[in-house]
Amino acid sequence: MTATDSDAGAFQREPVGLDERITADGSSAWPVEAGRYRLVVARACPWANRSVIVRRLLGLEGAISMGIAGPLHDERSWHFHDDPDNRDPVLGIEWLGEAYRKADPDFDAGITVPAMVEVASGKVASNGFQQLTLDFSTQWTAFHREGAPDLYPEEHRAEIDEVMASIYEDVNNGVYRCGFATTQDAYEEAYRALFARLDALSERLATRRFLVGDTITEADVRLWVTLVRFDAVYHGHFKCNRQKLTEMPVLWAYSRDLFQTPGFGDTIDFAKIKQHYYGVHDTVNPSGVVPLGPDNSGWLTPHGREELGGRPFGDGTPPGPPLEAERVPPLA
Amino acid sequence: MTATDSDAGAFQREPVGLDERITADGSSAWPVEAGRYRLVVARACPWANRSVIVRRLLGLEGAISMGIAGPLHDERSWHFHDDPDNRDPVLGIEWLGEAYRKADPDFDAGITVPAMVEVASGKVASNGFQQLTLDFSTQWTAFHREGAPDLYPEEHRAEIDEVMASIYEDVNNGVYRCGFATTQDAYEEAYRALFARLDALSERLATRRFLVGDTITEADVRLWVTLVRFDAVYHGHFKCNRQKLTEMPVLWAYSRDLFQTPGFGDTIDFAKIKQHYYGVHDTVNPSGVVPLGPDNSGWLTPHGREELGGRPFGDGTPPGPPLEAERVPPLA
Repeated sequence: MTATDSDAGAFQREPVGLDERITADGSSAWPVEAGRYRLVVARACPWANRSVIVRRLLGLEGAISMGIAGPLHDERSWHFHDDPDNRDPVLGIEWLGEAYRKADPDFDAGITVPAMVEVASGKVASNGFQQLTLDFSTQWTAFHREGAPDLYPEEHRAEIDEVMASIYEDVNNGVYRCGFATTQDAYEEAYRALFARLDALSERLATRRFLVGDTITEADVRLWVTLVRFDAVYHGHFKCNRQKLTEMPVLWAYSRDLFQTPGFGDTIDFAKIKQHYYGVHDTVNPSGVVPLGPDNSGWLTPHGREELGGRPFGDGTPPGPPLEAERVPPLA
Repeated sequence: MTATDSDAGAFQREPVGLDERITADGSSAWPVEAGRYRLVVARACPWANRSVIVRRLLGLEGAISMGIAGPLHDERSWHFHDDPDNRDPVLGIEWLGEAYRKADPDFDAGITVPAMVEVASGKVASNGFQQLTLDFSTQWTAFHREGAPDLYPEEHRAEIDEVMASIYEDVNNGVYRCGFATTQDAYEEAYRALFARLDALSERLATRRFLVGDTITEADVRLWVTLVRFDAVYHGHFKCNRQKLTEMPVLWAYSRDLFQTPGFGDTIDFAKIKQHYYGVHDTVNPSGVVPLGPDNSGWLTPHGREELGGRPFGDGTPPGPPLEAERVPPLA
């Protein structure tokens, strides 16, 4: 995702520009088909992180390959600077913007990750970050691994949608509204909404292991991608500093529980996260200096959440290890 | 104090420009004399905070009055914008720079606090922040209150000086070297030195209540003025973020002990501290937005340091309450 400021000092997220769906029933321009699309992500980006996690949990690695843009980008968009010759090895492009302009030569909205790119044409099929992971759960079922969890169970969808809507507004996007505010009032409104929501979520999660039902759902994925970045970037860089995550006991234990669950912590590269936020947002951090902290050693400590019960994968099983090419460095 | 950057990306503190002493024995141009000088400080500034604390602990309020510049300043220097008509009520000036130029019309070094200003002439007598508080202890003895502690005891001076020298380099000035670094290397060197020193100080203070001897000394004053600001400004704004002070148990308890000691916590105004750092350093925080955090409620919690023994004021006594005009708002 990318960011803009409104005149009023409040951060406004740009609408996504190629928000088409990939569906199983032929109801959209893009059909579900193994090998047809490449998911382009960046390790830094929380919106892309959702799709990395859900792809892992559902075992879609064989059906949807993954390209990983580097942490830095400029006005030309996300760049494959971690790949040999600065090019995605499958798409052959250097800048993700090339795939957007193949889809629409006049494309002038944000060049965002995650993006599903049709490999043969090189065109972006969809960058609809809100729908993408739900479609992984509901449209790509033919390619789910054995033991894949149901992350969007029918009987809980209304509750999941409701929980996710408030998390989006106050937490996922709320941290950006704190960090990109250019007036004190806009910042303070976002900060108060963020911490009020985190307090409510702490209360909810004090007595239940996961947000909805007794298994991991899409709602947990979406809350977690923001929480896992909280102390690394949002606390300092975005001024979300009432407490660190490590000082909010329930959310910290909840976050550790998922970090230690296959498919979550094994998608996280804190170095890339920090490089991105501190390196790219020059209106917030003009020097580009990347902090050495925080100490991450706490992530692997016992969380005690098993006592709350819950069945992380429901009737399913945890995913196996990540593909060799998609491994992140060990926690430093 | 003010800040400059060197070409190499490492922060260099400017030498002070009017570093004369005020002495009791006639050995300098400025003699000790009750009512002759006004100490100009700012609540935000750690270097000035030393002098505010030592003046309180020694009971020099009657001999040396105090002017308080507001938290914001620009290229014209510290400004009395918290006073009626934006003027110090005793000196009658709006900008502290006026007193520097009265002393030296060609003055072009940093316009810094603390500054001792001769009231009658309106001239800065001394802005030597390293010597000023030691002279409060050793030159102004005729005006110390009954029960004033000995903050610079003869028998411990060598050790106090040694401890203070390393604290100055790695901690007091070290946080500035982290925050004003404009290259990654300069930042990382400062960060590593800072936390290595804090680790060593944690070890030292694990088994003794104060840094040197068994009473509060100048060394404690100097360490504490940086620690008390750590989470409010240095952790986020200056990227000193391995841990918060609240996550370093020994230093956090030590800091609370002194915060709760008369003469320390009653000199602290966190709102002014944050307004200054976040409002003035536009190369670090271009938006000027001031964070609402951190939560300060922990400062008044029990610290348990009495168990280590020690006699905070030695054979002396704690100071009484601050002068009415010099009270800070309650902790929020």
